[in-house]
Amino acid sequence: MTHPRYTDLIAALPSTVPFVGPDEQERDRGAVFRARLGANESLFGPSPKAIDVLKDLGADIWKYGDPTHFDLKSALTRHLGCAMGNIIVGEGIDGLLGNMVRLLISPGDAVVTSDGAYPTFNYHVAGFGGTLHKVTYRDDREDLPALIAKAHEVQAKIIYLANPDNPMGTWLEGSEIESALDSLPEGCILALDEAYIEFAPQSALPNIAFEDPRVLRFRTFSKGYGMAGARIGYAFGAADLIRAFDKIRNHFGVNQAALAMASAAIDDQDWLDQVRDQVRVSKESIAQIAQDNGLSTLPSATNFVAMDCGRDGAFAKAVLDGLMAQGIFVRMPFVAPQNRCIRISTGRPEDMALLAQTLPGALAQARKQAG
Amino acid sequence: MTHPRYTDLIAALPSTVPFVGPDEQERDRGAVFRARLGANESLFGPSPKAIDVLKDLGADIWKYGDPTHFDLKSALTRHLGCAMGNIIVGEGIDGLLGNMVRLLISPGDAVVTSDGAYPTFNYHVAGFGGTLHKVTYRDDREDLPALIAKAHEVQAKIIYLANPDNPMGTWLEGSEIESALDSLPEGCILALDEAYIEFAPQSALPNIAFEDPRVLRFRTFSKGYGMAGARIGYAFGAADLIRAFDKIRNHFGVNQAALAMASAAIDDQDWLDQVRDQVRVSKESIAQIAQDNGLSTLPSATNFVAMDCGRDGAFAKAVLDGLMAQGIFVRMPFVAPQNRCIRISTGRPEDMALLAQTLPGALAQARKQAG
Repeated sequence: MTHPRYTDLIAALPSTVPFVGPDEQERDRGAVFRARLGANESLFGPSPKAIDVLKDLGADIWKYGDPTHFDLKSALTRHLGCAMGNIIVGEGIDGLLGNMVRLLISPGDAVVTSDGAYPTFNYHVAGFGGTLHKVTYRDDREDLPALIAKAHEVQAKIIYLANPDNPMGTWLEGSEIESALDSLPEGCILALDEAYIEFAPQSALPNIAFEDPRVLRFRTFSKGYGMAGARIGYAFGAADLIRAFDKIRNHFGVNQAALAMASAAIDDQDWLDQVRDQVRVSKESIAQIAQDNGLSTLPSATNFVAMDCGRDGAFAKAVLDGLMAQGIFVRMPFVAPQNRCIRISTGRPEDMALLAQTLPGALAQARKQAG
Repeated sequence: MTHPRYTDLIAALPSTVPFVGPDEQERDRGAVFRARLGANESLFGPSPKAIDVLKDLGADIWKYGDPTHFDLKSALTRHLGCAMGNIIVGEGIDGLLGNMVRLLISPGDAVVTSDGAYPTFNYHVAGFGGTLHKVTYRDDREDLPALIAKAHEVQAKIIYLANPDNPMGTWLEGSEIESALDSLPEGCILALDEAYIEFAPQSALPNIAFEDPRVLRFRTFSKGYGMAGARIGYAFGAADLIRAFDKIRNHFGVNQAALAMASAAIDDQDWLDQVRDQVRVSKESIAQIAQDNGLSTLPSATNFVAMDCGRDGAFAKAVLDGLMAQGIFVRMPFVAPQNRCIRISTGRPEDMALLAQTLPGALAQARKQAG
């Protein structure tokens, strides 16, 4: 017998990682990116009040944070209108998705998602031995009726839906989600990833009772609130399901400064409003830059824009490579036909200027390659 | 069928939490503690250089941190003398222990620990369905030969050993650990928790090859480095085992500021040296205070001291309650006969003055209760 004796599940898992981060790409290319537009971070930064909290905390970092997250959950109850017992805070949506999968999925259990949707969710499903079933996008939107039909077919325990969607930026109306709930299979949870909801129209927000046992909603401080490096997000839903997280989570997993910053960020909705304004302006810039280059963009309810490069995935990849070679960090969808697009995060005017400068060359090069 | 459909393992898990934190206790008593001596935090704080890093980072928190933890692992390779591939960084030792258990333990697999050792490890073992086998302390030290004998008996996949020990503060010599390795059952990993190793004598450090597949060692920035609120720790061992963590960990789980602070902290060993001096002085104070009250203390290789209250667990609990009632936060071991002690973290002279002030009253009250 050799060391170590991994579980059968672990021994069978591939050694892949869900994402290569921009820092690693920068090390590989030996230079920092000139514009960081690939990870849908908020280049407009966090609330200055959150930064003040970080600076004030300073030496107090010697104290363990509160594992019950009382102060942040209090702020969130005011923000959402629910009870403390409806909220769980964790190390980003990634961490919360992993724990949700662990609560529900035994090896062989079925899970449904869209083909090309968030790979980190798929990573967690594989990590607990679940069987993933994928449904194609329809008109560049996640196809909720098809997801539900597939869930019935395979008796899925979880359906993953991002609204607004990543990587396309499209969205479903809240009413579409509300009316779909009654068609969910018995015992199937809709994992509703609302990472980008702060940028969506009001109408994209479904009206769902906090105690509805069929839905768990995920939110983050990484996007609108500009705190991706802090690693903090939350989920809300029925108290019974929320309580179950306490059976398995790393109770002391969230950074104390992140907790304090998140409370300050939630209480500074004015900052979020002006971030939304800047994101809107930048989305118009991206659309204009696309148009100037004979390309189009998809409507977006997020802080990024899918730019349609007009041909196939190989062509879009060549455009992306051309931008990357010029120090513009962007990413693209994984599967056809969505991979005809590149995905560009919104940024400051200087970031948009760099994009406008570099896109024509990247396009010309890609067209030359394609012949 | 009801919502949600938990796994059988989750449905069977109790809804207990491994620790109640001091913040919750403060909310319950309606006042902050006057001396925070219960969680073995470092009241001497982190390196000023780490605090500077935190303050400088500020607005840059909008960026995702590096999921490969390249910079910190580089600093750690210099510190430890191993390769990058021997190190994994995570959300504190708690998070790393959870992932190690997930890698190795399927429901029903055997795990061995000491009765009264770290409850969060036990929590993770239960969380993955492992079967815990407990061995009693011997002379207030963890009994490594007995742990190994038990591991043979039950065919354990993991033995947990904290050196130095928490909650007693005692330690094994490194040579005792080295010579025990050859007696480990085939395929059994020694999980060596060295959270307090910075306070231990050199001789407590075993000399083990980094690529030895039988041992995984855990370290933290929460204790000597004074960054408990940052939630960051690391493990080191054979590259094959370390690589396996990448199959399951939350790749973006660690706070970016924590990563940068940890690098600065590792590079400031002078700060650690003066923390050690302050801890030594405080341990002498605690011993003196005990003696002044007719009590004794155990030798400690940590930043805390087990004070022997001289009677049984009920008596020590009464002393602890008396201190808590006066705003002195302390904790105590869970099982007999170790629970004749209370566990007091080292602190600043003002914390020691408060302890000296309040202990006589707490003792008198406990003696009165005991009759």
